[in-house]
Amino acid sequence: MTQTVKAYGAHAGDRPLEPMDITRRAPGAHDVQIEIAYCGICHSDLHQVRAEWHGTHFPCVPGHEIVGRVSAVGAEVTGFAAGDLVGVGCIVDSCRHCDDCADGLENYCHGMVGTYNGKTADAPGWTLGGYSQRIVVHQRYVLRIRHPEAQLAAVAPLLCAGITTWSPLRHWHAGPGRKVGIVGIGGLGHMGIKLAHALGARVVAFTTSESKREAALALGADEVVVSRDRDAMAAHAGSFDLIVNTVAAPHDLDAFLALLRRDGAMVLVGAPATPHPSPNVFNLITQRRTLAGSMIGGIPETQEMLDFCAEHNIVADIELIAADGINAAYERMLAGDVKYRFVIDNATLAG
Amino acid sequence: MTQTVKAYGAHAGDRPLEPMDITRRAPGAHDVQIEIAYCGICHSDLHQVRAEWHGTHFPCVPGHEIVGRVSAVGAEVTGFAAGDLVGVGCIVDSCRHCDDCADGLENYCHGMVGTYNGKTADAPGWTLGGYSQRIVVHQRYVLRIRHPEAQLAAVAPLLCAGITTWSPLRHWHAGPGRKVGIVGIGGLGHMGIKLAHALGARVVAFTTSESKREAALALGADEVVVSRDRDAMAAHAGSFDLIVNTVAAPHDLDAFLALLRRDGAMVLVGAPATPHPSPNVFNLITQRRTLAGSMIGGIPETQEMLDFCAEHNIVADIELIAADGINAAYERMLAGDVKYRFVIDNATLAG
Repeated sequence: MTQTVKAYGAHAGDRPLEPMDITRRAPGAHDVQIEIAYCGICHSDLHQVRAEWHGTHFPCVPGHEIVGRVSAVGAEVTGFAAGDLVGVGCIVDSCRHCDDCADGLENYCHGMVGTYNGKTADAPGWTLGGYSQRIVVHQRYVLRIRHPEAQLAAVAPLLCAGITTWSPLRHWHAGPGRKVGIVGIGGLGHMGIKLAHALGARVVAFTTSESKREAALALGADEVVVSRDRDAMAAHAGSFDLIVNTVAAPHDLDAFLALLRRDGAMVLVGAPATPHPSPNVFNLITQRRTLAGSMIGGIPETQEMLDFCAEHNIVADIELIAADGINAAYERMLAGDVKYRFVIDNATLAG
Repeated sequence: MTQTVKAYGAHAGDRPLEPMDITRRAPGAHDVQIEIAYCGICHSDLHQVRAEWHGTHFPCVPGHEIVGRVSAVGAEVTGFAAGDLVGVGCIVDSCRHCDDCADGLENYCHGMVGTYNGKTADAPGWTLGGYSQRIVVHQRYVLRIRHPEAQLAAVAPLLCAGITTWSPLRHWHAGPGRKVGIVGIGGLGHMGIKLAHALGARVVAFTTSESKREAALALGADEVVVSRDRDAMAAHAGSFDLIVNTVAAPHDLDAFLALLRRDGAMVLVGAPATPHPSPNVFNLITQRRTLAGSMIGGIPETQEMLDFCAEHNIVADIELIAADGINAAYERMLAGDVKYRFVIDNATLAG
């Protein structure tokens, strides 16, 4: 028995998103059924739905920054009950028996199923995301939200933008006594600044735009460096323990690698459509530096991040929109005209 | 009071090496004076003496894989006495007060002085290396050799080729239960195979040449993969904890990055004269992989490596030459025609 719910998606890569009906499975024994209250808009949504990434299935319903309230649970569900505030991020399934899954790093499991465009037995054969009224997810991939309900919309972006920066900050030990750089002050970067600051690190935000200085300081940066300013960059040479680089556009990685201390790491969390200029190996060798990548985060660390944010009163800075504003929001996101994340009020899908 | 000793060096980048007289300082209170028995030939020697690297001072006397016997010590020298077998590697001085020096990683100290072409108060103003009869070095940078004297010539390459591979193997935890790749089977690579094997790792050697298979197995590799063989490479996808890449010629890093497990690291120990093709960031992000660099090693870890090698009866595979064979050896080294390191018999300098 499937159920029909309203959603917003696209029928082709070159067509705008529009209202549509989709089906959800009836909750199985281990499933949690969630009435989606809000869903954040991630840049990945746009890439996928516009078929800029390989292999988009249509119709495509994006959305993997999902928050809402449990409306039903299966007989074997132990951790959740109707009425609970919960979230779903980028992952709705994985193999559950590999080393990655055992380590709580389902994000690196080769059987990881994305919240949209992932392979599933449910109709139509691929997963449909959070631009919809309701979703049914195996309990393993459901997160508990301990923030006050009034903050719920602003919690949504934690499920992707939050965990994507949290995971490398934790893995590479951001904290007191450590100097951490965040490159780019957008959806991901603004969360990186907030989280690194709350973790107790000294935080330097890098931006190409002088105009973002005050905003970055307000987010929690101790210092802001305009990366086009060679003298300002040189003043930080060899001083960073960690730089989390959120910029996916191709750019000069060496300018940032040179700012790392011995044994420092720069972690890329965005992949460019065309390659970055090849980094200078001398910058790696001469101070045993690391260039690494990190992708989202696992389920246990996502819960850790949500709990940390609830405790420290951290949410994203958002602009709430109605479903019929999604296409316009995409254009503004492309223009960098959002501080810092659009979130859809899913109640407007009923419309 | 300086002392004159015979050496072999070049007066210009476009001239061959030839016999010359150089001076050494009289041993100061903390100095160890060493009669050099053997000196290995490193590819760096050739780059420096031919002025392929920036800033070569002439006359240039290369050589930083130095072994010999102590002939005099200063009044404050505590660890060494005349008659001791000792070694000197790539480092003859450093600032001695920075974090790197405090951590025993003098190789990353900004004041590190190389064994040749480094700034010094001694005449002629830059350091002169091991292609010479005698050297005087501060005790901090002198290593004890515990191998039998009969192995001394073959110990020489441990001072650069050995420590350059040992340091990343140790830093990235090569050992039992870990799968380690060594890319390139030359002076560095052949030591990498021996050391990784002795550390208890499962060792896979990568070569472009099928003809090196048997030799790599004899060195201690558990398996050899010809990197041009796509199927053989694919069979190892996602399986390595660590790959130490000794190849300085520009090549496709992605072919090796794809072989790393989640959280695996590829460490470059050679820097190409022209850049490698830019690595695919997806290969880093999708499995949280690391691309890093490592340069030589610090003094304490060099001693650790030498002691480990003495205990495990490990030396380099060498071809011993007379000083007047250095120029010819350079040509053979460029052609890859050496198994695996030339070592100069410094007694032939007297000739």
